[in-house]
Amino acid sequence: MISKAEPERGFPDIEFEKRTQNAQNMMMDKGISALLLTTEPEIRYFSGFLTQFWQSPTRPWFLVVPGKGRPVAVIPQIGRECMERTWLTDIRTWDSPHPDDDGIKLLADALKSLTGNKGRIGLAMGPETHLRLPLNEFAKLNEAIGEQEFADATGILKSLRRIKSDLEIAKITHICEIASEAFDTLPDIVHTGMSESQIFRRFKMKLIECGADDVPYIAFGAAPGGYRDIISPPSDRATEPGDIMILDTGSIRDGYFCDFDRNFAFQHASDDAKHANKILYAATKAGIDASRPGSSITDIFQAMMHIMESAGYAPGSVGRMGHGLGMQMTEWPSIAPFDPTRLEPGMVMTIEPGLTYGDGLTMVHEENILIQDGPPRLLSRRADPELPIIKD
Amino acid sequence: MISKAEPERGFPDIEFEKRTQNAQNMMMDKGISALLLTTEPEIRYFSGFLTQFWQSPTRPWFLVVPGKGRPVAVIPQIGRECMERTWLTDIRTWDSPHPDDDGIKLLADALKSLTGNKGRIGLAMGPETHLRLPLNEFAKLNEAIGEQEFADATGILKSLRRIKSDLEIAKITHICEIASEAFDTLPDIVHTGMSESQIFRRFKMKLIECGADDVPYIAFGAAPGGYRDIISPPSDRATEPGDIMILDTGSIRDGYFCDFDRNFAFQHASDDAKHANKILYAATKAGIDASRPGSSITDIFQAMMHIMESAGYAPGSVGRMGHGLGMQMTEWPSIAPFDPTRLEPGMVMTIEPGLTYGDGLTMVHEENILIQDGPPRLLSRRADPELPIIKD
Repeated sequence: MISKAEPERGFPDIEFEKRTQNAQNMMMDKGISALLLTTEPEIRYFSGFLTQFWQSPTRPWFLVVPGKGRPVAVIPQIGRECMERTWLTDIRTWDSPHPDDDGIKLLADALKSLTGNKGRIGLAMGPETHLRLPLNEFAKLNEAIGEQEFADATGILKSLRRIKSDLEIAKITHICEIASEAFDTLPDIVHTGMSESQIFRRFKMKLIECGADDVPYIAFGAAPGGYRDIISPPSDRATEPGDIMILDTGSIRDGYFCDFDRNFAFQHASDDAKHANKILYAATKAGIDASRPGSSITDIFQAMMHIMESAGYAPGSVGRMGHGLGMQMTEWPSIAPFDPTRLEPGMVMTIEPGLTYGDGLTMVHEENILIQDGPPRLLSRRADPELPIIKD
Repeated sequence: MISKAEPERGFPDIEFEKRTQNAQNMMMDKGISALLLTTEPEIRYFSGFLTQFWQSPTRPWFLVVPGKGRPVAVIPQIGRECMERTWLTDIRTWDSPHPDDDGIKLLADALKSLTGNKGRIGLAMGPETHLRLPLNEFAKLNEAIGEQEFADATGILKSLRRIKSDLEIAKITHICEIASEAFDTLPDIVHTGMSESQIFRRFKMKLIECGADDVPYIAFGAAPGGYRDIISPPSDRATEPGDIMILDTGSIRDGYFCDFDRNFAFQHASDDAKHANKILYAATKAGIDASRPGSSITDIFQAMMHIMESAGYAPGSVGRMGHGLGMQMTEWPSIAPFDPTRLEPGMVMTIEPGLTYGDGLTMVHEENILIQDGPPRLLSRRADPELPIIKD
């Protein structure tokens, strides 16, 4: 059972006021007169606008954070009612889709009036971002804003979003508990001989049963002696004794993700797999232990690498060994030697060492932690040190 | 129970060969020497690459369709194993994320070698598309491709994807049957007094139980006398006698969507709601009846509008009354007066009239159909003409 009380859904207005105020302080420092946001997490971060309607690629959506005051929504009419339930008061809509002008003039007018037609408009242009607007429409927008210009605001969004508030931490903690609970039931609901896709489906339903709103991500691997790949969908192959299985889930509740995995062996595990598991458990511990405020990402990466390399293993193909976690399943920073970030209290991170062993096999462990003064707080229930065995 | 046999997962290579050949014919006509694809559906359309890993925004992924031969994948190393299971043979990978060059040089080299360093590179720039690549990286790519230039290839992708093959139709038909089955069970699994979020969760689990791989989209509305909004998440409010509820789902199986809705009344419905339902049922019928090969989209739109306007209703706020359906929940074309498309056999469409009534209430009906010679084939089980009542 999920032990803690469910955090209330949504946020009080003060949460959005703080986020907006923090953004505006940074904008002033950088000479940015307004932020223009086009993507789901960024629009939700400043407004609280939560909907699955983003599944439809048809319509563009915009949020403008001016230098002062509340953000202004420039959105398709279909979203008005939902946006009116947020803390926003200035909501401008057009009938979308529209063949001639799908909101560009309305947006350009909003930008002009909110910036006094001067200054730079901040836009996410850096790593892990994209513009959710057709390139042709972006060209029209560039035209329409006249003498104003766009400037890269990735740094502002990154530094805001990587420190989680107490309310955000409560939401992430809750979904981590839900997924921990679902993982713990696995040996009871999975049996040797079930097909990969049956297990996948069973696990997904268990996550929802335990309280997840949605399960946008399950990575699945199961194969004799070990898996090779952690991003493929499950097949209809029946599992066999000696299979090693990984299940990794990015589940959400109230718009916040967990992201961690568990490994299991069907009936028995090879010594190779057991040993890989043991080393990864130790590498994860080293990563967790190294995650203190002020630690450099490089140090955490090296702490994990050291354990794996000392035991004679090469790293896996993931390209990093953990990352930020929150409104998106993967957020800045990356636990990789190139990332200059130093940890700060309030960051939520995945610790995710992976190694290769045997003939092209791979294994990955993952836990979710909160950086705080002193040792980090585990948000996922720590994996068993021994590779769990599915007995029947 | 789902009556028909499950279609086999995936596609034979010949499906991808045909798609690629069709693209290459159009590219030659338009003087495009290679297509560059960055988004999930487009990369999957030409490769069969199916993974939930797109949830992570961290890494860019590229597929290049050259003038001749199979597409070439330029992707992060983490995707190699999964991409190797597709029909592609030329897979180029780099260690991603990478701080200095996250695949841009590898991609530019691929583009140069595949085009003989000349000609235009097709990119989706038009309505309903976006570039899944940070703007800063796109600037680097523009630099790196030297004298080559990008040209809008939206038209090519649009005309290819809007006609579904028999195997694609089988997949869409199957997920429509799964959702029809789940909808039919609703009056048995939902009771007055259940909270909106309980109903939402119960319906989602039923969809998975019935065979959906995933339920990325459920729109939910429930309120006394009628709902106002079809894109908001459910609240914890308990349903009451007289509530009108809409559930609309975009569920997927093997990478293909259904997208239709059903309306229900709790215990009893107002005469207003019953009348709105009756008119929408008739409008939907008019839309379906008008959907023949050669019909213009405008005619279909007008057929539905005529029914609603004759009965004194204004349209809803959706901005259109249906759209294409397939690998994405909403695809081209839009059933709106501005869309110049004429229907062709093999198009899969949603017929989705919506109206407003009472004091700001809205109601939407939706069915999924296949355009074929003669009358269209219904893929969703046709809604009941009478507003279904949840009795207890």
